[in-house]
Amino acid sequence: MSLSQVLADFVVKTQYTDIPDHSLTVVQASLLDYCACAIAGQNESVAVALRGMLNAEGGAAVAVVFGQTEKLPPRAAAMINGACAHAIDYDDTHFDYIGHTSVAVFPAAIAMAERVGASGKAFLTAAQIGLEVACRVGAYMGRSHYEAGFHQTATSGSFGAAAAVAKLLGLNSLQCQYMFGLLSSRASGLKNQFGSMGKPYNAGMAASNGVEVALLVSHGMDSVENGLETDFVASHHGEANDQALASLGSEYRFDYISHKFHACCHGTHAALEALIGLRQDYDLRPEQIKHIQVKVHSRWLKVCDLPAPTSGLQAKFSYRMVLAMVMQGLNTGDPLAYTDHLHKQAGLQESMAQITVSGDEKLHDTQVEVGVTLSDGRVLHKAYDCGVILPMTLLMDKLTTKAQVLVGAEAAARISAQIADLAYAKRFQLTLDS
Amino acid sequence: MSLSQVLADFVVKTQYTDIPDHSLTVVQASLLDYCACAIAGQNESVAVALRGMLNAEGGAAVAVVFGQTEKLPPRAAAMINGACAHAIDYDDTHFDYIGHTSVAVFPAAIAMAERVGASGKAFLTAAQIGLEVACRVGAYMGRSHYEAGFHQTATSGSFGAAAAVAKLLGLNSLQCQYMFGLLSSRASGLKNQFGSMGKPYNAGMAASNGVEVALLVSHGMDSVENGLETDFVASHHGEANDQALASLGSEYRFDYISHKFHACCHGTHAALEALIGLRQDYDLRPEQIKHIQVKVHSRWLKVCDLPAPTSGLQAKFSYRMVLAMVMQGLNTGDPLAYTDHLHKQAGLQESMAQITVSGDEKLHDTQVEVGVTLSDGRVLHKAYDCGVILPMTLLMDKLTTKAQVLVGAEAAARISAQIADLAYAKRFQLTLDS
Repeated sequence: MSLSQVLADFVVKTQYTDIPDHSLTVVQASLLDYCACAIAGQNESVAVALRGMLNAEGGAAVAVVFGQTEKLPPRAAAMINGACAHAIDYDDTHFDYIGHTSVAVFPAAIAMAERVGASGKAFLTAAQIGLEVACRVGAYMGRSHYEAGFHQTATSGSFGAAAAVAKLLGLNSLQCQYMFGLLSSRASGLKNQFGSMGKPYNAGMAASNGVEVALLVSHGMDSVENGLETDFVASHHGEANDQALASLGSEYRFDYISHKFHACCHGTHAALEALIGLRQDYDLRPEQIKHIQVKVHSRWLKVCDLPAPTSGLQAKFSYRMVLAMVMQGLNTGDPLAYTDHLHKQAGLQESMAQITVSGDEKLHDTQVEVGVTLSDGRVLHKAYDCGVILPMTLLMDKLTTKAQVLVGAEAAARISAQIADLAYAKRFQLTLDS
Repeated sequence: MSLSQVLADFVVKTQYTDIPDHSLTVVQASLLDYCACAIAGQNESVAVALRGMLNAEGGAAVAVVFGQTEKLPPRAAAMINGACAHAIDYDDTHFDYIGHTSVAVFPAAIAMAERVGASGKAFLTAAQIGLEVACRVGAYMGRSHYEAGFHQTATSGSFGAAAAVAKLLGLNSLQCQYMFGLLSSRASGLKNQFGSMGKPYNAGMAASNGVEVALLVSHGMDSVENGLETDFVASHHGEANDQALASLGSEYRFDYISHKFHACCHGTHAALEALIGLRQDYDLRPEQIKHIQVKVHSRWLKVCDLPAPTSGLQAKFSYRMVLAMVMQGLNTGDPLAYTDHLHKQAGLQESMAQITVSGDEKLHDTQVEVGVTLSDGRVLHKAYDCGVILPMTLLMDKLTTKAQVLVGAEAAARISAQIADLAYAKRFQLTLDS
């Protein structure tokens, strides 16, 4: 069977009961995180521009939209909601393909679940299928695709978005192949948008493209049956990694999604977790510290080791700044903490002066070692590995805390309750007016 | 200045009076051809699928749509109207970049001219700018981009569509650069769709993408300023042919557009013109013919030399069949002539048996030589070159005849009259209900 056929059959045949409880919990946790990120990003300039264009278009009030009470058609809602959730770059990442998965798939699944009146279980099944297909297609396209300049969030993400929509529309296997065939021509997105509004737009494009091609096929459109594994992978510098489909349907790669708990560069997160752990374990205060030594894989030194940041954005790419924030009791999980005046805040420069960062090739790029030398001569050590999956209750706790910071306790509780109810809801609904 | 900056300045600075009369006439002739092709294709399956999806979306009734009286938002109208015009593959081609130019640019320009209430002159200026940008970007991306699998109609076409819309919206130079930057991420389209509904969808995508990015920039979206000449050309196998911008603004490459006058493969057209010429000059009848010898560049033998076609589609790729149609008095310009029963029609097989086709490396691939041996012993010769620009009155005559065949004399006259009035119209309008 061709790759497109295998993926199409996975979409068509997978049922709610086929998906392990653990995987469904990861989906629900990620949905909470997606909503919190989207609400936090809903007033960013990119969201304003997209709502401006798409509200002027108007159309059937079918699908919920972040940042306004008026609903819009599914393609439009998916585009806005994908961009909102990626606007502050605080959403989840999957390292199988270096893509942001949730921001491409959830907006498409949400928009279409509303339109077809799906049950909560049907929505969760479709979302899980979509997330899984995004991961698998991303792994199939591989690192060469990414290195050539493509933004996997947008390219592979659109295949996941389409898969979720296809499940909700009840497309058959051949229709799914046509849909992937259309995407081989429609999917796009480059990393050159990083640093501009084009980056979150890429996420919105993925979600919208997924809705578009699935709907077109449901309206009778055809295409080639094997576009992904022939011309798309060849023309888009893909690896055509056939191992990408190993254990499809029995193992869920989306389980290995990585959520962000700090509103700064992912490369700093292991160091932050290690220092936060030490600070909590030993109740450390700034005046006790003599020196903090951080060892990371040297690739990160080129990414997030700015020595003296002078803006909020620069602060997010500075080990010394974000670690100093921890010592000064600032919340690195709050995007609003990264102001342009942050570097002038009392105590921060003093804490920064105590921190040394060095590269260590023996570490994996998800690992870090932190050593803290105290004024009393004691030396404390802690290692941390971001690649290790968190226990589910800890993950939920951390994501709930993050959501509370991003949208407030009340809204976080309201969204959490809706997500918890999804598996029992006769009809999918998500109320976002917060 | 960067490539994007040069193109952006061309969009912003070019005025109606800067464009030579000859070029404006080519635009008007191409607009007639575009409309005729779109009406002829408006009930094809791809058009039905797109209208199905986009009418369900609905939205602001702003822009005219082929095949229905209800108007739709500009992005939607552009997508449908691009696909309609490319559905029967009878629209114009530009050999600078092997792309179909009009089907990407006109739908975007028409949709936006209606929305902004542009004058006829403003529409013509925007359309000419868009057509020219499509040709120039296509030449910049070059043959390597096409050979790698990309459908230039869709990729480079979207830059032309956006340029036309930008002119109508009055975007400034930096905004145009952002728009091209967004397209470096948004533009897509593969040749693997050929033979499926995905091919005309590609044309609709180009038009819709152009409208989308220009509108987004007008709503405040930004992007990178040099996306086309850096990451897009690099990741999409482009040639980065800097000569592509030579004489921009003083010479109009769109002048060299090639229109189809026969509803079959472009490779057969020179031979058809030569034989039709001989038949008219000497009033030839089938019973006078002993033998017809056709010499073409040998690359065409692999493209359109099917010896014994048994379907309407196959007939379009058979020198002997289409030349036999000429001898039997059938109209090769009428798409409806290519039925699946064509090969059984009286006289056709007899005429086919008199025709020999051979390759000749000395000919350019737009050239052909036809020799006809008559029963009375006379031998007649005629050469034809499809690469030669037709005199403007002859072009208009031929396109008018083609439009009459495609949409009927009355509708063709109505559209022609509207196009002739455009240069004097205070407000652009196009009535398509035919």
